[in-house]
Amino acid sequence: MTEDDALVIFTPSGKRGRFPLGTPVLTAARQLGVDLDSVCGGRGICSKCQITPGYGEFPKHGVTVDADALSEWNAVEERYKSKRGMIDGRRLGCQAKVMGDVVIDVPPESQVHKQVIRKSATERVIEMDPATRLFYVEVAEPDMHEPTGDFERLAIALRDQWQIEDVEADLHLLRRLQTTLRKGEWKVTVALHKGNHDARHTILDIWPGFHEGGIYGLAIDLGSTTIAAHLCDLKDGRVLASSGVMNPQIRFGEDLMSRVSYAMMNPGGDQEMTNAVREAIDNLSLSIAAEAEVHVGAIYEIVFVCNPVMHHLLLGIDPVELGQAPFALATSGSLSLEARDLGLGNVNRAARVYVLPCIAGHVGADAAAVALSEEPGKSEDMVLIVDVGTNAEILLGNKTRVLACSSPTGPAFEGAQISSGQRAAPGAIERVEIDPVTKEPRFRVIGSDLWSDDPGFGAATATSGITGICGSGIIEAVAEMRMAGLVDPGGLIGGPDQTGTARCVAEGRTHSYVLHDGSAEGGPRIMVTQGDIRAIQLAKSALYAGARLLMDEMGVDTVDRVTLAGAFGAHISPKHAMVLGMIPDAALDKVTSAGNAAGTGARIALCNVAARDQIETTVHQIHKIETAIEPRFQEHFVNANAIPHATDPFPHLAGVASLPEVSFNTAGSGAEGGRRRRRG
Amino acid sequence: MTEDDALVIFTPSGKRGRFPLGTPVLTAARQLGVDLDSVCGGRGICSKCQITPGYGEFPKHGVTVDADALSEWNAVEERYKSKRGMIDGRRLGCQAKVMGDVVIDVPPESQVHKQVIRKSATERVIEMDPATRLFYVEVAEPDMHEPTGDFERLAIALRDQWQIEDVEADLHLLRRLQTTLRKGEWKVTVALHKGNHDARHTILDIWPGFHEGGIYGLAIDLGSTTIAAHLCDLKDGRVLASSGVMNPQIRFGEDLMSRVSYAMMNPGGDQEMTNAVREAIDNLSLSIAAEAEVHVGAIYEIVFVCNPVMHHLLLGIDPVELGQAPFALATSGSLSLEARDLGLGNVNRAARVYVLPCIAGHVGADAAAVALSEEPGKSEDMVLIVDVGTNAEILLGNKTRVLACSSPTGPAFEGAQISSGQRAAPGAIERVEIDPVTKEPRFRVIGSDLWSDDPGFGAATATSGITGICGSGIIEAVAEMRMAGLVDPGGLIGGPDQTGTARCVAEGRTHSYVLHDGSAEGGPRIMVTQGDIRAIQLAKSALYAGARLLMDEMGVDTVDRVTLAGAFGAHISPKHAMVLGMIPDAALDKVTSAGNAAGTGARIALCNVAARDQIETTVHQIHKIETAIEPRFQEHFVNANAIPHATDPFPHLAGVASLPEVSFNTAGSGAEGGRRRRRG
Repeated sequence: MTEDDALVIFTPSGKRGRFPLGTPVLTAARQLGVDLDSVCGGRGICSKCQITPGYGEFPKHGVTVDADALSEWNAVEERYKSKRGMIDGRRLGCQAKVMGDVVIDVPPESQVHKQVIRKSATERVIEMDPATRLFYVEVAEPDMHEPTGDFERLAIALRDQWQIEDVEADLHLLRRLQTTLRKGEWKVTVALHKGNHDARHTILDIWPGFHEGGIYGLAIDLGSTTIAAHLCDLKDGRVLASSGVMNPQIRFGEDLMSRVSYAMMNPGGDQEMTNAVREAIDNLSLSIAAEAEVHVGAIYEIVFVCNPVMHHLLLGIDPVELGQAPFALATSGSLSLEARDLGLGNVNRAARVYVLPCIAGHVGADAAAVALSEEPGKSEDMVLIVDVGTNAEILLGNKTRVLACSSPTGPAFEGAQISSGQRAAPGAIERVEIDPVTKEPRFRVIGSDLWSDDPGFGAATATSGITGICGSGIIEAVAEMRMAGLVDPGGLIGGPDQTGTARCVAEGRTHSYVLHDGSAEGGPRIMVTQGDIRAIQLAKSALYAGARLLMDEMGVDTVDRVTLAGAFGAHISPKHAMVLGMIPDAALDKVTSAGNAAGTGARIALCNVAARDQIETTVHQIHKIETAIEPRFQEHFVNANAIPHATDPFPHLAGVASLPEVSFNTAGSGAEGGRRRRRG
Repeated sequence: MTEDDALVIFTPSGKRGRFPLGTPVLTAARQLGVDLDSVCGGRGICSKCQITPGYGEFPKHGVTVDADALSEWNAVEERYKSKRGMIDGRRLGCQAKVMGDVVIDVPPESQVHKQVIRKSATERVIEMDPATRLFYVEVAEPDMHEPTGDFERLAIALRDQWQIEDVEADLHLLRRLQTTLRKGEWKVTVALHKGNHDARHTILDIWPGFHEGGIYGLAIDLGSTTIAAHLCDLKDGRVLASSGVMNPQIRFGEDLMSRVSYAMMNPGGDQEMTNAVREAIDNLSLSIAAEAEVHVGAIYEIVFVCNPVMHHLLLGIDPVELGQAPFALATSGSLSLEARDLGLGNVNRAARVYVLPCIAGHVGADAAAVALSEEPGKSEDMVLIVDVGTNAEILLGNKTRVLACSSPTGPAFEGAQISSGQRAAPGAIERVEIDPVTKEPRFRVIGSDLWSDDPGFGAATATSGITGICGSGIIEAVAEMRMAGLVDPGGLIGGPDQTGTARCVAEGRTHSYVLHDGSAEGGPRIMVTQGDIRAIQLAKSALYAGARLLMDEMGVDTVDRVTLAGAFGAHISPKHAMVLGMIPDAALDKVTSAGNAAGTGARIALCNVAARDQIETTVHQIHKIETAIEPRFQEHFVNANAIPHATDPFPHLAGVASLPEVSFNTAGSGAEGGRRRRRG
């Protein structure tokens, strides 16, 4: 160790180097490539470069840090601390200079590539590397003897102070440039957006002086039924608000194919649907910003994930070709656009849009987003990912190969086509248990943690009432009925004599199960009808058949683990899903929920530019199976009608659930046919 | 020479190579890098690849060409010839195959980089290399087992068939893509635009099948007073129509500084001016297309040259900073935009705009265009280029160094501020001769080749009448008056006794010269007044002073040659301009006209993409002098008031023109002061 320099060690990275005495900590960090943030370029304005020096003995690092290892606390730091507060022990990296060997810890919030705090164990960790960032620069004043335009000098400042080359600006920004520069006395903050394919940067916005306001992005999962948006802080990735609205295109068609038909039958129909969905998104941007208490004009980016029909309608492309083989997309690659190209006028006028690439046919950008979030292509074991919605996106794969398909399950899982079905909202039955002996049910309702047989349940649900049953509720109800022997493997509900409960009542030629009779309180009578069972059977069969097709193609009979995704998939009980035969058999602890994986994928793409490149590559490696034309789909579909399945063994399930072998087919084995409990 | 291949020699390039028998001539040309056009990619559709084979002995090339050197005339060629005609002896390069040694001549019209036919000896030769070109491709049909979007397959076709990578398309083109592909049965023609900074190509338009329609571009010289446009064929560079309109911003201010003042004094005034000029350009695009009998929607490119104030107003940038030192431009670099960014809705909706870079301060893209056209930086000798307009752009230089400045001459040269002044139009006096003995004038009027003393002049000008005097006319008139001794070096018009002609009449305290008295026919009395002389003196002094400033900076006292440019500069008589002292002394045969050099520069940039890169580099090498703040400008201006000059010798001029030493200053030397003819 010479007199004139000192050793600087950064944690947690461990990077170290010797620096001349007097070197600012921020400079040392830059030179070592240590992730230490700065927006103001080291001028003591932004305070993003806060660090925590460590003093004393560090045998692990082989260094002793004296009390005077850093320069003295200065006026800039004092001013910042008194105005905004700073944790004791912290210093500003741009102000503190190295005066002796020192260990510097970089707290998470001072990192550029900070990790987004996980809300649940299953939520993917996102590393921040957003396309849009703020940069503070000091621009040279005009000099008549060295003539350059103001914009050119701004570009030079960005190059010299931030090593950013190749900067462009829209015309409307050029209009504001001169005034802003002069108002800021030649010091400005710019919001720069970098394209992911090239290093080109675009100036989206500019403020005089140092701008501390937030910059935000929207991650939007544009589903057939629900448009779900997350408003994220582009500096640290926090989700400030999540909000959803119904897709207004429903009035043109409940599902995708009926919307394509609408476009085919009605000239201009596609444009009606395009306008409707864009207006809904525009309004959603406003409401979600209000909910988060940020200015909608501070939203600079939107990332969209959507299936191909939604994709085309969003873009204003007639989806007619998607209605028939060969299901050719107009374009399947990712798209980088401006929000105004999509008529979205509430967000910042320069806001940029990124649409994830589609895989092919009916397997769209939402499946790509799920792949981005769940990364089946990095899995050691064989994972099945099911994103449950009006269309189910199904991915199967591991490090060797990934397959995908889209299966038209229909809206039964979201409560449509169900007699007492409703969307998930307070008052909807979401969980059901049926005592296999007494056949009596108990249930839980959205809005309360109490079960219906708990005291206080009535009071707790007085406000919402018990209004119907939502998707997760009907799945549990049907599965519980199967386990309680009230529904046979074929899906038939037994009569009161066959089942031994008066809750099974005759309705026409079939039977229904009375889950809750609220008529005494003036509420509805919530039944599970035979029609409900059929609707669920059809939906789950489509799902299972899609999964089976992928398994055939993959050459496997079983999967190692199953991930349930989709806004709704997060709430499905793995055991009940397996009882129903929605998903193939697997160890129950290997069936997990990934929440809204498509939405997570959208957030990842929003917060990390490299992820966009990644998914663009990955989609080419995912092989698509087209359920609509695979000859075996029908066969698999039929076999999957039974609950849980006509032929496939469910060994894991047998170990955890009781599936009575009953039969209520009065035309077949007798009415008293046998209630034989099957133990597996 | 083996049996299986043959020698192919192309003229005029001289490129040669051996090719297997059966190789199409077009293929051989491609492989040798011979410039032979094809739009249809060798499918026998476009007939751009016509060649002329040469037969017999070619001692120069060392080859003998047999009659069967090429394959036989085939059905495709026959069909084309009978439908469209083909010059005898020609073959289609894509159809004719090499069967023996052969000499192939490529006629000019079959070249991609064809040279634009020169209309005059001084007109710069332009090599075609436009940004927008047509390409015919055959696209693979969608295949459900190899899923790709239609756009992706189109991009693959462009890559495979034309080696064009990195293709993009606007959203509105994606909307038309699927329909067009299917209508064309997977064969389409696309209009591709390549950016000059990168190899990125954008699809501007698409047609089913092979599209033979024209594609056009506008080269626009956006002057303070006149907006001049040339409609060019982007395939061969021909100018199909040239048209101009008055800049509607004149109502906000006659000259640039008054427009800047208008913006400063009136909030929203800059936007008024922006809207006015954009509307004028939008209308001009329509009228010039009509004049050329092409569809305005077939205009795919616009190139603009303009001075910085015009530049900023076109772009919608408040020009206020240009009204005061340091005259900072918002941006000085070139700009690539979309026509719709400028509100130009008549041209093709995807039309692209390129604005040449500005030099600095008041020396704008129009000066850059002049530099592109005249290439002072490549000159061996010292050349002075003067682009005469409301502002004069002046360039001085040679291979070593190029300087530029802008001098505020005012509109006198265009007929404004002149008592009988008018814009150049039929009926305006454009040429004047005054007999030095009799002092009698004769003149020519726009619309007729006859002089006023020719018989038949009256009849020839009966329709237009003799209505006034335009810019070139007033310059000749003043110069002729000087040479005839009617105006003294100081600019004073003499009285009838001093001059010996009754045409010099008293008007108040001064005298005027009666050029033409049309009152007998009910026409105007066209005079040259003392005020007119003063206006011309002031204008020409500003011009000369600007040139002198550059010469000072360059360290020279004389220039080797002078080029007069500007729509008006083309019509100025070099001798008269020198008599007036508008330009420095030089050998008269070294003073030439370059026509509208700024417009030519715009055309060059329109037709040749490499020229855009070239000018972007060159502008950084041109050093700007700011006339407004140079201390010597005033001094040079004052010295230049005299006709031709107070102090600078004009040796060349003295050899060709007679400049009587007279003086009409009655307060000085006496009225009979002396009419001494000075011979130099």
